[in-house]
Amino acid sequence: MQIAPAHLRLARHAGVRRLLQEAGLDALLVTSLSNVAYLSGLFASAAAIVITRDRFAIITDGRYLGIAKGVIEYLSGVELVITPASIPFDHALAEALCSIGHGRAGFEAMHFTVKRFRELETRLAKLAPTVSLESTEGVVEQLRMLKDEWELGVFSEAGRRLSDAAKCIIPKALAGMKERDVAAIIEAELRRVGFDKPAFDTIVASGPNSAVPHYRAGDRVLTAGDLVVLDFGGMLRGYAVDMTRTIAVGVASGRQRRLLGDIAAAQDAGFAAVRQGNPATDIDRAARESMNAAGLGEFFGHGTGHGLGLEVHERPRIAQFRAELPGEPLQPGMVFTIEPGAYFPDWGGARIEDDAALTASGAQWLTDVPRFWT
Amino acid sequence: MQIAPAHLRLARHAGVRRLLQEAGLDALLVTSLSNVAYLSGLFASAAAIVITRDRFAIITDGRYLGIAKGVIEYLSGVELVITPASIPFDHALAEALCSIGHGRAGFEAMHFTVKRFRELETRLAKLAPTVSLESTEGVVEQLRMLKDEWELGVFSEAGRRLSDAAKCIIPKALAGMKERDVAAIIEAELRRVGFDKPAFDTIVASGPNSAVPHYRAGDRVLTAGDLVVLDFGGMLRGYAVDMTRTIAVGVASGRQRRLLGDIAAAQDAGFAAVRQGNPATDIDRAARESMNAAGLGEFFGHGTGHGLGLEVHERPRIAQFRAELPGEPLQPGMVFTIEPGAYFPDWGGARIEDDAALTASGAQWLTDVPRFWT
Repeated sequence: MQIAPAHLRLARHAGVRRLLQEAGLDALLVTSLSNVAYLSGLFASAAAIVITRDRFAIITDGRYLGIAKGVIEYLSGVELVITPASIPFDHALAEALCSIGHGRAGFEAMHFTVKRFRELETRLAKLAPTVSLESTEGVVEQLRMLKDEWELGVFSEAGRRLSDAAKCIIPKALAGMKERDVAAIIEAELRRVGFDKPAFDTIVASGPNSAVPHYRAGDRVLTAGDLVVLDFGGMLRGYAVDMTRTIAVGVASGRQRRLLGDIAAAQDAGFAAVRQGNPATDIDRAARESMNAAGLGEFFGHGTGHGLGLEVHERPRIAQFRAELPGEPLQPGMVFTIEPGAYFPDWGGARIEDDAALTASGAQWLTDVPRFWT
Repeated sequence: MQIAPAHLRLARHAGVRRLLQEAGLDALLVTSLSNVAYLSGLFASAAAIVITRDRFAIITDGRYLGIAKGVIEYLSGVELVITPASIPFDHALAEALCSIGHGRAGFEAMHFTVKRFRELETRLAKLAPTVSLESTEGVVEQLRMLKDEWELGVFSEAGRRLSDAAKCIIPKALAGMKERDVAAIIEAELRRVGFDKPAFDTIVASGPNSAVPHYRAGDRVLTAGDLVVLDFGGMLRGYAVDMTRTIAVGVASGRQRRLLGDIAAAQDAGFAAVRQGNPATDIDRAARESMNAAGLGEFFGHGTGHGLGLEVHERPRIAQFRAELPGEPLQPGMVFTIEPGAYFPDWGGARIEDDAALTASGAQWLTDVPRFWT
């Protein structure tokens, strides 16, 4: 798999070191596998990183030796620690942390289980009693929120590919097909246009199922008169893109057309609110005001969007303002979805979702597919 | 989705209560989503269970209200707690745990992050300072290891379906195709035979890639002379099945044929070692001795198998004996893979994997597909 060039990964290491210094930490233990992939280029199911002022150690097991050697090729100063199969993986974490001698080592409290933490604590108490473990949250995630030039290039390509796939998928969803057969077509198209895999379980929600935002795809047969929510995405070079279109099977009714038009207007309003420096929650506010004005507010029960990256749901937070969760200010390098929807139990629902990036030259859509297919 | 009948789910609750009593615990907080699904029938991305001597509360959010109401329909005495969107989900956990008044509440140390644990601890200290939190491991997993009659029925059907898919997939992997195109065909077949989704990222590893056990599927084109490892699985009603076949593109060489024959013999040896009461690690020992006798031992770098269930990798442990990780004794109701393989860097590798169940009437294969396609 193509990964970010070495100089950009080294810039990420510098970013972590800057944040550690600000927090008064001497080291960070990175156990989120997405954070490991971001900093090293190594996508693995068992890996961790210990980053200190002067060391950067990638810890993984023998299965990843070949790939790990490849990712560190141009990363000067990065060490590779391969743990033998006979020793629990986490033992190597304690040993790598010891190397700071004494001081404060941060760990990722959202990505470390109590079991692993307690074992590390016990081991560290023996090996290096002057090293303390300090809880951190979102250190690497803060860097991941702002995509670099290489990542923006991946998103630009992924958005084009997803749009190509969508244009082939949507006309194939026809009366008489089962939801799960449409999902199979979507996933085959995602592969055909070059995605490594779907970014999440594909949603094909028809008729009454379209009123259930987290529905997946089942045995229901698409029937004339249905609204069908198609929500799908792909992973390209480790990054997720995500799109939703809602189609009417057969001829759309007046109510269906109005609903889709109102949702598209809310999406436009959200996009128009993308302005550098404003809080990301402004996107939600603008879309929600548009939905409220159309009388759809109470049927719009989820946030307007979410950040995209190595995970499908990332920062920035694009949902209703909450005092205890202030929205991140919008900055160049942010990539996110805008996806208002409305759901009427028993009748059906609709959602329209596209991906956008904020760059130095302003907000841009990454996906480009007609919003009305009825 | 079809879920286990209520009387079997209630039997699982009784099983947890028995284990809690043995451990001197007054309650268990279940945060593993697979464990939640097992006990309740609710498959959700945000859910937890608090089980005490006399209460069983499923905690989830509004998105799952409809489904959650369905799953508790015949579960007498089970409460549903829907957390409003305005309150962090975990607040409800502390409140449900308080209801024991005082005593020892277990939590799942392998399925609870340090962040969530510390927040719960703080909250509980205010609400119910006489309730203590105690670390547990594998309580529900211990029950999950032994499948009940309904689960064995699901596995039996899933094994048949996977075998049907395999027979259609394997002849379609031909010289000139890209690995990722073969993966797309496999995933379409899995859908066609009725699986809800692939159980994991499909592996299509051709030529030198076949020597890398954790490889996925890339742009390499299948070429005459290649060995190609096809490793795929599906989810049916929440349960995972898993199979591997290795094919030669074109006419197999003598070395390729011998390798596949030796691996099949090791798989047979592993299956022959499935005997109630013996440790599950005996399956690994028997397969490994067979591989050693064929001179393949040093190229067989992974365990012989793994348990199957709501997750693709579960107990029992079927790998080399380790004093600190004693193998579970084989018991009726266990479902697992047997999958020896050998990998020669640069040259290629092969693996053969099938699924088996141990029932009261002995060991049985769940999958039934020819092992040689060359």
